[in-house]
Amino acid sequence: MAALETLIEALKRLPGVGQKSAQRMAYHLLQHDREGAQQLSTALRSAAEQIGHCRRCHTFSETEICTICADPARDPKLLCVVESPADQAALERSNSYRGYYFVLLGRISPLDGVGVGQIGAAELLQRAAETGVEEVILASSFTAEGEATAYVLAEALRARGLKATRLARGVPVGSELEYVDLGTIAHALVDRR
Amino acid sequence: MAALETLIEALKRLPGVGQKSAQRMAYHLLQHDREGAQQLSTALRSAAEQIGHCRRCHTFSETEICTICADPARDPKLLCVVESPADQAALERSNSYRGYYFVLLGRISPLDGVGVGQIGAAELLQRAAETGVEEVILASSFTAEGEATAYVLAEALRARGLKATRLARGVPVGSELEYVDLGTIAHALVDRR
Repeated sequence: MAALETLIEALKRLPGVGQKSAQRMAYHLLQHDREGAQQLSTALRSAAEQIGHCRRCHTFSETEICTICADPARDPKLLCVVESPADQAALERSNSYRGYYFVLLGRISPLDGVGVGQIGAAELLQRAAETGVEEVILASSFTAEGEATAYVLAEALRARGLKATRLARGVPVGSELEYVDLGTIAHALVDRR
Repeated sequence: MAALETLIEALKRLPGVGQKSAQRMAYHLLQHDREGAQQLSTALRSAAEQIGHCRRCHTFSETEICTICADPARDPKLLCVVESPADQAALERSNSYRGYYFVLLGRISPLDGVGVGQIGAAELLQRAAETGVEEVILASSFTAEGEATAYVLAEALRARGLKATRLARGVPVGSELEYVDLGTIAHALVDRR
């Protein structure tokens, strides 16, 4: 059946969905939730067509300027640099940051041909140089690529006389020391307070 | 953002997808694969609109009679009863059955108010009584509800003088006896050959 095969192939483009899950999803929708299939179809189309990027911070936004950038109650002294809108959402959920954001277009990854020019570093430097910004918090991931990204950006920011900080490394909340990896323990020891 | 929230809610209707996976899928599609989002949208709509049920065996079909029911090379003496199109697809993939199928509308589940009248038993009895059918193979699941379904259908078929058989129970291929559950071992012993 062409329509069923096409649906299964399309579902496999979702992250974490292989042949078996895609089949299960397709059969489930057709047998038990055709209304859900129609809803999902509409939601996908609307999202792909309506969601663009904020002109100021580059996060996902349905408007030219996102709600965070448009919020005057935020602290203009702080600018937090993240790798993706998903990372920004995680920071927002933590309810512990009240400044503005700048969302990079990914992270430096020489093997994939992504250099400092491809992640929007120039726009970041321009944004960070705006009046009022006193500290740029680098919140890229703590992976090799994320660390490289943070390092390169910190150098560039400091060369322009801007203050750049990095999220603290350490033992995650709720973890038992026995099961924490050695690199994390070493960092937590060095950065003890 | 309304469009993003709506998309995440819609993705959560997929089986096995919770809040976290739905977020990851939505962010992935928007950031890296908008074309995939559009394709999936179209595939969902087409499938929901074009795929109906075969008039003869009730499986999913884009045509009035499905390709299996329309295939004259199949063995008309055998009729295999399954719970869902997904179960039928699994049997087809095993490449070991050459007869026709009858797909039930689920299985008997008194707690959910699904009795023998709701699973299409009347149509099955009618289909099984057609000239040429010599054996009805009951391939409902080996769960409590599937077993109840098979039992009730077998009784009804035998009362009409039709031959009803059940898939063999036993040790799955590739399994070590040590890890097979006791009920399966007991059945495999009784049905030894």
